[in-house]
Amino acid sequence: MHIARWTLEEMAARWLAEDVGRGDVTTGAVIPPDRAGVARIEARAPFVVAGLPIARACFDLISDRQVAWHAFVSDGGEVAGHDALARIEGPLAAILTAERTALNLLGHLSGIATITRRFLKEVQGTTATIVDTRKTTPGMRLLEKAAVHAGGAANHRFGLDDGVLIKDNHVAAVGGVEAAVQRARASVPHGLKVEVEVTTLDQLDAAVAAGADAVLLDNMQPEMVAEAVKRAGGKATLEASGGITLENVRRYAETGVDLISVGALTHSAPNADLALEVEL
Amino acid sequence: MHIARWTLEEMAARWLAEDVGRGDVTTGAVIPPDRAGVARIEARAPFVVAGLPIARACFDLISDRQVAWHAFVSDGGEVAGHDALARIEGPLAAILTAERTALNLLGHLSGIATITRRFLKEVQGTTATIVDTRKTTPGMRLLEKAAVHAGGAANHRFGLDDGVLIKDNHVAAVGGVEAAVQRARASVPHGLKVEVEVTTLDQLDAAVAAGADAVLLDNMQPEMVAEAVKRAGGKATLEASGGITLENVRRYAETGVDLISVGALTHSAPNADLALEVEL
Amino acid sequence: MHIARWTLEEMAARWLAEDVGRGDVTTGAVIPPDRAGVARIEARAPFVVAGLPIARACFDLISDRQVAWHAFVSDGGEVAGHDALARIEGPLAAILTAERTALNLLGHLSGIATITRRFLKEVQGTTATIVDTRKTTPGMRLLEKAAVHAGGAANHRFGLDDGVLIKDNHVAAVGGVEAAVQRARASVPHGLKVEVEVTTLDQLDAAVAAGADAVLLDNMQPEMVAEAVKRAGGKATLEASGGITLENVRRYAETGVDLISVGALTHSAPNADLALEVEL
Amino acid sequence: MHIARWTLEEMAARWLAEDVGRGDVTTGAVIPPDRAGVARIEARAPFVVAGLPIARACFDLISDRQVAWHAFVSDGGEVAGHDALARIEGPLAAILTAERTALNLLGHLSGIATITRRFLKEVQGTTATIVDTRKTTPGMRLLEKAAVHAGGAANHRFGLDDGVLIKDNHVAAVGGVEAAVQRARASVPHGLKVEVEVTTLDQLDAAVAAGADAVLLDNMQPEMVAEAVKRAGGKATLEASGGITLENVRRYAETGVDLISVGALTHSAPNADLALEVEL
Amino acid sequence: MHIARWTLEEMAARWLAEDVGRGDVTTGAVIPPDRAGVARIEARAPFVVAGLPIARACFDLISDRQVAWHAFVSDGGEVAGHDALARIEGPLAAILTAERTALNLLGHLSGIATITRRFLKEVQGTTATIVDTRKTTPGMRLLEKAAVHAGGAANHRFGLDDGVLIKDNHVAAVGGVEAAVQRARASVPHGLKVEVEVTTLDQLDAAVAAGADAVLLDNMQPEMVAEAVKRAGGKATLEASGGITLENVRRYAETGVDLISVGALTHSAPNADLALEVEL
Amino acid sequence: MHIARWTLEEMAARWLAEDVGRGDVTTGAVIPPDRAGVARIEARAPFVVAGLPIARACFDLISDRQVAWHAFVSDGGEVAGHDALARIEGPLAAILTAERTALNLLGHLSGIATITRRFLKEVQGTTATIVDTRKTTPGMRLLEKAAVHAGGAANHRFGLDDGVLIKDNHVAAVGGVEAAVQRARASVPHGLKVEVEVTTLDQLDAAVAAGADAVLLDNMQPEMVAEAVKRAGGKATLEASGGITLENVRRYAETGVDLISVGALTHSAPNADLALEVEL
Repeated sequence: MHIARWTLEEMAARWLAEDVGRGDVTTGAVIPPDRAGVARIEARAPFVVAGLPIARACFDLISDRQVAWHAFVSDGGEVAGHDALARIEGPLAAILTAERTALNLLGHLSGIATITRRFLKEVQGTTATIVDTRKTTPGMRLLEKAAVHAGGAANHRFGLDDGVLIKDNHVAAVGGVEAAVQRARASVPHGLKVEVEVTTLDQLDAAVAAGADAVLLDNMQPEMVAEAVKRAGGKATLEASGGITLENVRRYAETGVDLISVGALTHSAPNADLALEVEL
Repeated sequence: MHIARWTLEEMAARWLAEDVGRGDVTTGAVIPPDRAGVARIEARAPFVVAGLPIARACFDLISDRQVAWHAFVSDGGEVAGHDALARIEGPLAAILTAERTALNLLGHLSGIATITRRFLKEVQGTTATIVDTRKTTPGMRLLEKAAVHAGGAANHRFGLDDGVLIKDNHVAAVGGVEAAVQRARASVPHGLKVEVEVTTLDQLDAAVAAGADAVLLDNMQPEMVAEAVKRAGGKATLEASGGITLENVRRYAETGVDLISVGALTHSAPNADLALEVEL
Repeated sequence: MHIARWTLEEMAARWLAEDVGRGDVTTGAVIPPDRAGVARIEARAPFVVAGLPIARACFDLISDRQVAWHAFVSDGGEVAGHDALARIEGPLAAILTAERTALNLLGHLSGIATITRRFLKEVQGTTATIVDTRKTTPGMRLLEKAAVHAGGAANHRFGLDDGVLIKDNHVAAVGGVEAAVQRARASVPHGLKVEVEVTTLDQLDAAVAAGADAVLLDNMQPEMVAEAVKRAGGKATLEASGGITLENVRRYAETGVDLISVGALTHSAPNADLALEVEL
Repeated sequence: MHIARWTLEEMAARWLAEDVGRGDVTTGAVIPPDRAGVARIEARAPFVVAGLPIARACFDLISDRQVAWHAFVSDGGEVAGHDALARIEGPLAAILTAERTALNLLGHLSGIATITRRFLKEVQGTTATIVDTRKTTPGMRLLEKAAVHAGGAANHRFGLDDGVLIKDNHVAAVGGVEAAVQRARASVPHGLKVEVEVTTLDQLDAAVAAGADAVLLDNMQPEMVAEAVKRAGGKATLEASGGITLENVRRYAETGVDLISVGALTHSAPNADLALEVEL
Repeated sequence: MHIARWTLEEMAARWLAEDVGRGDVTTGAVIPPDRAGVARIEARAPFVVAGLPIARACFDLISDRQVAWHAFVSDGGEVAGHDALARIEGPLAAILTAERTALNLLGHLSGIATITRRFLKEVQGTTATIVDTRKTTPGMRLLEKAAVHAGGAANHRFGLDDGVLIKDNHVAAVGGVEAAVQRARASVPHGLKVEVEVTTLDQLDAAVAAGADAVLLDNMQPEMVAEAVKRAGGKATLEASGGITLENVRRYAETGVDLISVGALTHSAPNADLALEVEL
Repeated sequence: MHIARWTLEEMAARWLAEDVGRGDVTTGAVIPPDRAGVARIEARAPFVVAGLPIARACFDLISDRQVAWHAFVSDGGEVAGHDALARIEGPLAAILTAERTALNLLGHLSGIATITRRFLKEVQGTTATIVDTRKTTPGMRLLEKAAVHAGGAANHRFGLDDGVLIKDNHVAAVGGVEAAVQRARASVPHGLKVEVEVTTLDQLDAAVAAGADAVLLDNMQPEMVAEAVKRAGGKATLEASGGITLENVRRYAETGVDLISVGALTHSAPNADLALEVEL
């Protein structure tokens, strides 16, 4: 997933401003402004990398593109502990000032890519596709979805405007799955499929009958998902969602369900462990 | 920690825009615009609450302050599973459109408050203070620090401009702890203390001798921290940092160290589990 | 289509700033600041109304919501010459300063709704749906699409991220319709349908065979569109596009094609004629 | 009219964001990121060109200035059908993603320049100057005024702060042309002329007597304008306005009036017809 | 001069953010959040007031309009030492946090109004008008010009776009006053007068002959200005500029020159002395 | 004090927009767009320079970095009348359009550096450090503090978040110096010192006893400050503040007080006198 450089620098500007505020007083006091430096970003444990472009944008912005950046790996690549991700050469003060923001991004996004890859491995050999959700950190959705993609999973919709997903609260408000699907079908742009969330097999039948393109099976046990797959008979894309973990994901995948969405990819991934080391 | 309403609404505007984009197509298609609704935000598991003001700002902004908001708890309060955090009454479409952004914030921030509270309980009865770090999610630092505060811990500096912390890379660049402390002392505003990171007891001695106000003991084992406490003899505030977990935090606390900083409070807290239920 | 008030006021702020600049020198010099006034927005010719919410936001913003606004019609309603659209009561200086921006918006958007309605009437009784395109005025897409909706037509995708439309240049770059459809199918979020543009019936066959959900028939004569409808046999949604005018649109509609997209709805609609009259 | 590059890129950023949103899913799925391409922007019909600098800024921004741009014509130049306006070489994905925004701008602005040129030709040989109005598309005024200038006409004021124009509603509010002109004269900066709108010849006399620098003759027939010219005797600049079309403009121009303002230059010009062709 | 409230709050937001940053740590630590308070803004010396609306906007914004504001004087009014300008009642923390920003604005702007009033008094009884220049503090022009107006002087142009002033460097670049005036006359909008800067009486003659509406007499002694007034014979507005102080301004005013522009009104006015006192 | 180039260009963009508005009509009309030029920024009187980086950013931004900039001096350097500060070579129109904004900044900031240097010279040979305050021009604090630094003085806190200063109103609200210091000590981040403002020697004793790190002696005469120095006995940093001028500053400095803060450095410094001369 390619993000234009000006978009990355716009993000970097906002985030550097948050950390740097009116200036890095420590670096300003301690490091001579004309001192050059070389630094390496290193893994402290194995993980899947994500976030290199935004990390680079932080160093670029703060140094007015005066740092030379050499990456040893790309987003989606795997590193072992002690591996270097990138080498940075340029004004030392700029490197130290941007360090934390860049590492926070790399650590957070690589954490997401890493857990995503683990889910991928669990379902290997099945036909299920792992997808993310909208349970992302506000302000970071685009990058978090890119990290999921780097981890190897697919992206669900990016927001409320690029996909239709009729949730339980929508259904309840209009009195049933069928009514809700029909309303959506009648008024959303023709380029969007209509997906609806169901909690029972009867609702699934109603959804399929009403012409839903996809059905989200909410919080069903694997057995019930398997039954749903049988009943839908390929007439709608089926997505299992809710309570899915590394421990149980394979059982869902083996039901033949098309998609398995996992909120934990983005909302609870522990940070990847990495550091910036100055070479002297 | 009080954040002005216009600041909260500015954040809410950015984050709602990220999720809503050009409009919530599902809600627009399914829910009549004049339909009123009542919803409750409910815990699905026990946790410490944080983020209510920003969650409220999301509903306020999207509804032009047409929702009535009633909170049953405040930031820092604890809830059990099934407890309601807040009741929202107003235009149903607005409630459903803001739902995910508000829940993402509440879940993320309550997750931070919850893990913070657990660390607090571990060190109960000691004189150690748990503090956070700058390992926060870019764009969310202010709210994450407020969540740490709601959890009961203290805040370390908020950015590179409101605290001096001379790190290993700074020390290395100027040739030693003493030189670095002296440079900082000579040029930072007088309202800021000077803290320096050390990895050996010799460096600690040098830091204290150079007049550092605080010393960060990086990645030392509890025994070494205890020795550091003895050697510093109260002449500087001591902060233990690096590799500190729920499992080992008490051993650090019992060394008599003043501060224990824990990056995991903010960078790896799992989301609190909650949901919005529409009452019908 | 509902747009939240804060979004409208954000637009109004940008556009008022463009016109007002550092202040309305004429009104500031001529009108006493405490003078109240009443004004009516009147049609000078018959048209379909669109843009009332954004027009109101202009008066609201400039007067800090001190104007009382009473609309006699809603977006999508039809007015005859001399009909009043709305009555505004409040500080006269604010009314006069916001006048031009509000009228420019109402005139432009009502122009779009009006021509849209005329297309709708031409195809009445057929099964064809008129849709808009991305040929909108930069900065005004959301409002222009809302005006098309007020006029009675449906909206095509709102941007490059909420719909897949493989255009001739994409097809050319990857060597054929089939390859392009397959690539798209393999990587776009599952909530999006895949539409592809074709210029020949052979390409149409390839598109349908490759599983395209929709096919845009580019610049085909009505006869060829009719043939396409026959060949596709309902296996894909068909959209006629290119060179379609009020004069020939019915011939396209009678082919049985599903969608007819018309760029001229948004890119070349003449302004609706209206004025603001101060009551004395 | 020269607009600085950073101003153009700021506009381009806002408008590309509107179209691209979270990313061009089609191009991202179909076009390999490292694929280079060459494209030509071509006229499909004869027109006067305007908007090349902002179109270029779109391609520059999205590609981080990695496209080579060669223009075959400048703003104000005329092209025939099939003529190329510009050749673009660079990353194909960037070219395709920016295409629509760039073409929408070029088409809209060239449409304005084209109709402006037609008005110019109608009044050729007379002493009348064609000028634009504030009836522009919100958000596009600067570019639309530049397009009018490219078409060969002159610009009226750019906003409410760089010119004084006392309109009928102002006059009515203060009880007459004379009072209004005097108030304005007494308080506006000395660098601004005072223009007042009149609908009768008596008002014209009052305006001239009160020392108005310019008088806008609102909705007068050519005969009455001719009479006004005689009566004013060169003591004020006269501007004819209201209901002026390509059909009747010459009759106005032949009255000897100084300025003829035409709202339709900017509010109702049909788009110029052009396309981007990828060379293979 | 009226500035809309949303414009004032936009300025207040930027400036409060500059001072408050991530939060007022002192007030947050010391003042209970629910503590109400009453404060008075008091003069410590006599001055002319300016800036009350922007000061109020600071308190309004930070308190979400929860403060009651009562002003005892308006912009342009004079106060003696110990006089109260305004009384503020509301959340004490909000009052203390906004205090410095509000006082900085009031002090700076009142300083400008005060020195302006002194210049006014010096020229009393003559026909000369005191005007300001573009020598303002970047970011504060609108408010500084409003302060000049509150002080009783007139405003020169507000920027480079709402007035034509051909300076020495422009004249030098095109080879003479006459050429420069003619170029300007030929291409600037008809609502703008043409003013040109001259340093000799010969240049003045050329300017008048070329039809300049106004002439700026740069750095001329009063005697030479008097001679210029005679020579121009009322054919152009004359403005004396350069090196004019409270000591010599009357000698300039008595020459009969129309305008006297004084950069020192805005670039070097000492702050007015005032304070905020909390009532207990 | 180093400020990153993107931060400078962001400021420059805001301030150029304020002056240039919709375009420099004079330069646009008079100067051919392709005309190159050379200009020098010259002192008209002796002063200490500050603001060169932001001045340069103005020319860079408006010319898309097409001007060559050569500075003959750095911030903090002293110039005599007629000395050149910098030479600028590039598009003449860009140079003339950015001129006023750049000069306003240089004049304002150099004025601050100059008066700061004068204070420095007054206290030469004593141990007192001159520091600035928060009495800065809203929107210019960072640059004004950098100018103070260029002048040779030290910076006090930059905002309400990077330093604790308990003022009289805080003290009054919580009932005493001791309570206020204790509250602050208990809750502010450990990297911040606690400073409290006192007006009597008894309050000073209380402050020291309560553990204040620094004490601001408000509006005390030099004799009383000397007494305070004696009484504090080095247990707290002492800052004299209030009513300190070039005339009396030495008497304060000779008391042995640590810091002398002077609001007039930033709020009332007269502009430095300089000009831009085009070389022909």
